[in-house]
Amino acid sequence: MKLVYTGKTKNVYELEDGNYLLAFKDDVTGENGVFDPGANTVGLTIEGAGRAGLRLTKLFFEVLKEKDIPTHYVDANIEEATMTVKPATVFGKGLEVICRYRAVGSFLRRYGLYVEEGAELDAFVEVTIKDDGRQDPPISEDALAMLGLLTKEEYQVLKNLTQEIGGVVKEELAKKGIDLYDIKFEFGRVEGGQIVLIDEISGGNMRAYKDGQYIEPLELEKLMLL
Amino acid sequence: MKLVYTGKTKNVYELEDGNYLLAFKDDVTGENGVFDPGANTVGLTIEGAGRAGLRLTKLFFEVLKEKDIPTHYVDANIEEATMTVKPATVFGKGLEVICRYRAVGSFLRRYGLYVEEGAELDAFVEVTIKDDGRQDPPISEDALAMLGLLTKEEYQVLKNLTQEIGGVVKEELAKKGIDLYDIKFEFGRVEGGQIVLIDEISGGNMRAYKDGQYIEPLELEKLMLL
Repeated sequence: MKLVYTGKTKNVYELEDGNYLLAFKDDVTGENGVFDPGANTVGLTIEGAGRAGLRLTKLFFEVLKEKDIPTHYVDANIEEATMTVKPATVFGKGLEVICRYRAVGSFLRRYGLYVEEGAELDAFVEVTIKDDGRQDPPISEDALAMLGLLTKEEYQVLKNLTQEIGGVVKEELAKKGIDLYDIKFEFGRVEGGQIVLIDEISGGNMRAYKDGQYIEPLELEKLMLL
Repeated sequence: MKLVYTGKTKNVYELEDGNYLLAFKDDVTGENGVFDPGANTVGLTIEGAGRAGLRLTKLFFEVLKEKDIPTHYVDANIEEATMTVKPATVFGKGLEVICRYRAVGSFLRRYGLYVEEGAELDAFVEVTIKDDGRQDPPISEDALAMLGLLTKEEYQVLKNLTQEIGGVVKEELAKKGIDLYDIKFEFGRVEGGQIVLIDEISGGNMRAYKDGQYIEPLELEKLMLL
């Protein structure tokens, strides 16, 4: 088992059968010791955070499997905090795809002239480039095509998958009386070129609210896994 | 004649026949006394700057008129530094539409991970919101539709017009051996809903280079009006 990548919150190992193993760490992103899923630096270590994130990820990936929505998921070992996944290549050096149901975060910071905080957005999809040094800038469908990151056809697939998966997560949260405000995903291409959901779906990937109150990622994981 | 708007570089008066008069000022945008067309504050006053901008604007708007490309232009009075235009309403509180032929400026700052400085871009179009307080953020076709600023059909019209007009300006500059790197336009709706080019097309709207050297807006105007 060979370590191929050391990430902020996960390490990635290559397995002998060609699959990969994601090892979830207890490190979470944030600044000055405060957990902030949107941050680009590791802020603190919380015991059990990796396992909690994996348990929620497993829950969602298994729901997606039942619905025949393509992901890189093979299986998960909660005890060891690892997830086995199929090999996939990201677009360029990685994109994040965001699905928004409410105007908060960077959407509100950008478009506050035209939208009120918390206003409903109709499963609005936008793509950002993973580039810490440039603050993960948003990028348009045309720019993605021009820079050779994603064809127009692939963009449509990505957008549809994002709205479909966002809808599944929203529905699961709603069963516990929790509102999904926004969620970010990563996608990749597997053998043959099919676009699939990769990475994780944990508290750190989304903003969730209950009775109008923001729920911290670890609290969200607790509520969802009760 | 009633003053209806005081802008950074122009004042706008309403005429009795329903048209508007744009009075070009000698104030130019910039910071710390340096002319920067991309800046959001008035940086300095340069004698003759208003008239030079208007002369170049007149040149381009008259070429566009010959080509039957719709604009708000009626006529111009160089001596008085004024331009008469048809009434038009902007989209929301105003959008800027940029056409890029080379990767410089904010495009390079955002997408430098995937593009080299000065790389050729194929008349790439992007829209930004006029919002000084939020640093004129870029906005996607989907977001423009969702926020009610522009329908998908209008977006296509805007994009096509932008590439067409950008091409006209590029060609005019090429006649003097000058390369157009990028240019920004404003559009509006006239009576009946038709989308037309509004505002001005002067040195301050574009980045132009000659023999690989950036040409200042006032120098560009001199070269173009020789």
